[in-house]
Amino acid sequence: MALIVQKYGGTSVGTTDRIKNVARRVAKWHNAGHQVVVVVSAMSGETNRLIALAKEIQKNPDPRELDVIASTGEQVTIGLLAMALQNIGLKAKSYTGPQVRVLTDDAFTKARIKEIDGDRIKKDLDEGKVVIVAENGNITTLGRGGSDTSAVALAAALKADECLIFTDVDGIYTTDPRVVSNARKLSVVAFEEILEMASLGSKVLQIRSVEFAGKYHIPTRVLSSLTDPDIPLDEEQNSGTLITFEDDPKMEKVVVSGIAFSRNEAKITLPHVPDTPGIAYKILGHVAEANIEVDMIVQNAAKNGLTDFSFTVSRNDLDKTLQVLKDNVLPYLGEEGILTDASIAKISCVGIGMRSHAGVAAKMFRVLAEENINIKMISTSEIRTSIIVDEKYMELAVRALHKAFGLDKETGAMEG
Amino acid sequence: MALIVQKYGGTSVGTTDRIKNVARRVAKWHNAGHQVVVVVSAMSGETNRLIALAKEIQKNPDPRELDVIASTGEQVTIGLLAMALQNIGLKAKSYTGPQVRVLTDDAFTKARIKEIDGDRIKKDLDEGKVVIVAENGNITTLGRGGSDTSAVALAAALKADECLIFTDVDGIYTTDPRVVSNARKLSVVAFEEILEMASLGSKVLQIRSVEFAGKYHIPTRVLSSLTDPDIPLDEEQNSGTLITFEDDPKMEKVVVSGIAFSRNEAKITLPHVPDTPGIAYKILGHVAEANIEVDMIVQNAAKNGLTDFSFTVSRNDLDKTLQVLKDNVLPYLGEEGILTDASIAKISCVGIGMRSHAGVAAKMFRVLAEENINIKMISTSEIRTSIIVDEKYMELAVRALHKAFGLDKETGAMEG
Repeated sequence: MALIVQKYGGTSVGTTDRIKNVARRVAKWHNAGHQVVVVVSAMSGETNRLIALAKEIQKNPDPRELDVIASTGEQVTIGLLAMALQNIGLKAKSYTGPQVRVLTDDAFTKARIKEIDGDRIKKDLDEGKVVIVAENGNITTLGRGGSDTSAVALAAALKADECLIFTDVDGIYTTDPRVVSNARKLSVVAFEEILEMASLGSKVLQIRSVEFAGKYHIPTRVLSSLTDPDIPLDEEQNSGTLITFEDDPKMEKVVVSGIAFSRNEAKITLPHVPDTPGIAYKILGHVAEANIEVDMIVQNAAKNGLTDFSFTVSRNDLDKTLQVLKDNVLPYLGEEGILTDASIAKISCVGIGMRSHAGVAAKMFRVLAEENINIKMISTSEIRTSIIVDEKYMELAVRALHKAFGLDKETGAMEG
Repeated sequence: MALIVQKYGGTSVGTTDRIKNVARRVAKWHNAGHQVVVVVSAMSGETNRLIALAKEIQKNPDPRELDVIASTGEQVTIGLLAMALQNIGLKAKSYTGPQVRVLTDDAFTKARIKEIDGDRIKKDLDEGKVVIVAENGNITTLGRGGSDTSAVALAAALKADECLIFTDVDGIYTTDPRVVSNARKLSVVAFEEILEMASLGSKVLQIRSVEFAGKYHIPTRVLSSLTDPDIPLDEEQNSGTLITFEDDPKMEKVVVSGIAFSRNEAKITLPHVPDTPGIAYKILGHVAEANIEVDMIVQNAAKNGLTDFSFTVSRNDLDKTLQVLKDNVLPYLGEEGILTDASIAKISCVGIGMRSHAGVAAKMFRVLAEENINIKMISTSEIRTSIIVDEKYMELAVRALHKAFGLDKETGAMEG
């Protein structure tokens, strides 16, 4: 017997028929002798409807009151799922976040969990009940889509054996299957890899839920909620992707585990600025003060005491960044114009195997050179190498790298 | 400075524009120096939508889980109203029922309030905040439309000076203005009268809210939420109807205060049953066991040891009652058939002045005889006289009685 926390997102509970399917799926685990705690989101579309209603009153809704309103979405789902479980003969009890005291700090819409009281839940489980919990805590929702984090945090507090994140995809892939048709589902992926992918904009899981899972060592699995719920548990192939630890023997010894990419980038170049000490700070200090996140930075070799200074920001921040530069930096540097390029894309190879293999960047350069794709910028972390290319070459580059690192093969590439 | 509890029903908060109007109305009281606690219902239609959703899962939804779902309707409204108040410069704080600990007993959908903790609310009020409370308590809603009761119960717990029930009519009338065009708005009505009218199906206020108001002596006023919210408080004519006590000097000394009526009646007659002791019990015992409420009972004078036994039930219960009689009573009494009449109406004259005036029934008979309307059954209580007539004469009878008891005149009739 295991204690399992299961989480179902908005699409998985989007209609009453889907909620009935979730009930049948939950029953399967319960009837196999497991204790099950279910965390659910609002039915898909519902949170957006509620936020739109709030915006009819306040353009920038008060965070506390917005949470009061938005958390009702999940509250409806927990009641409906409890009923659906009762219909098929299970005992079920629903709790809103405040009722199980998922305590959060005071940063309302982006609250972090401080404390969880699991005693009431454990008592219900011991009485044979399925426990259903809304993702909100202290009426503070953990930011939108906070249900992943709620689920992992609950799993940590209850010392659960596993946390299952049911979603509308069947696991985590080596890259986006819409771009690379033979992208392969990973059976196992390391926490650190997921964290890097999440920070690159891959929307598999909330990044804070992965942090929690890593911090509390909760084996967490991403799997499909759309398979037939009535297939017996021991016949089911729906094992998804297990997020585990670097030292787990199940980890495949590959160098690159996945390739992430993003079109959400823009490059800004200040040509011919004086190559003096502190020039980077003079330019980027004002940008940082305006709460704009700078990603990659490149400073060319100086010529005649002048250098080209380039950096990238999120494409949404481009206009704001230009305004900051015009107000603060240009007058000070003298007029040379600012060059912008919003037609770029970032591609990142991610893998914990990179720690012990130096050649990943070199191999990326070789592969892209063979495809005549120019690399505009490079940045690296311990387990990630990212490059900027022209947006029009993005798909081609991703496919070439996916093949070159052997990600379409079950065993993966053993060397960089 | 007074402490005022205000309640706004579903129609009054049915759109975000109406919620903004409510905010302006609340601000008017707050800016005049009063402390205001606002109790709100779900936006009109929302509770029905939520219940329909629950019924897609369970035909007879589990009461606890239905409350979990239905109480989200009010929760959305409290958040929206708090935002609307903030927009116009007021400090406002919203509370769900559980947050202010409106404790109820375990009869979920029809819970009665057991205890209210008003300390947090008083603290907010002392800090100059408008406090907004959802009608639900311990997630148990007080039955549908329980917000009247929540408002009066809160007023009692907070020892409020007055409870204002804002609704889509401007007060309580001598009778339904759709039937009698010169029906008159009562400026004052006694608790006991309202209780009798409510029990007759007049849907002005929830009956339990009136019981609370009487028990805790809370002056409660019913008034319109649809007047211009920006008319200054001291110029406003929107005084509605004050529900007060028999010994209040403001009470008009009238015999009949109002006329209630209902088409929701059916008469059942068992002709020629033996006129033996206990016959009424033999017939009605089975009906009572089936939880069918019997209203009026008439047993004719016996002839040859036989009598005609008649009684009325709610028209909705007619089929069920006939089944009970066929299963239990007829075989025992012998076959004489059962006569039913669903084309009847009940008309009731209500007034605390009837206590000291014996002639009300006699005057009713005279008035109806003058209109050639036959009275089929009669029943009385201390402050009410009810009659059954053919449904087709109902409007005529109500108009004749309304005029005869002087209800169209501001001073009312002084004698029966």
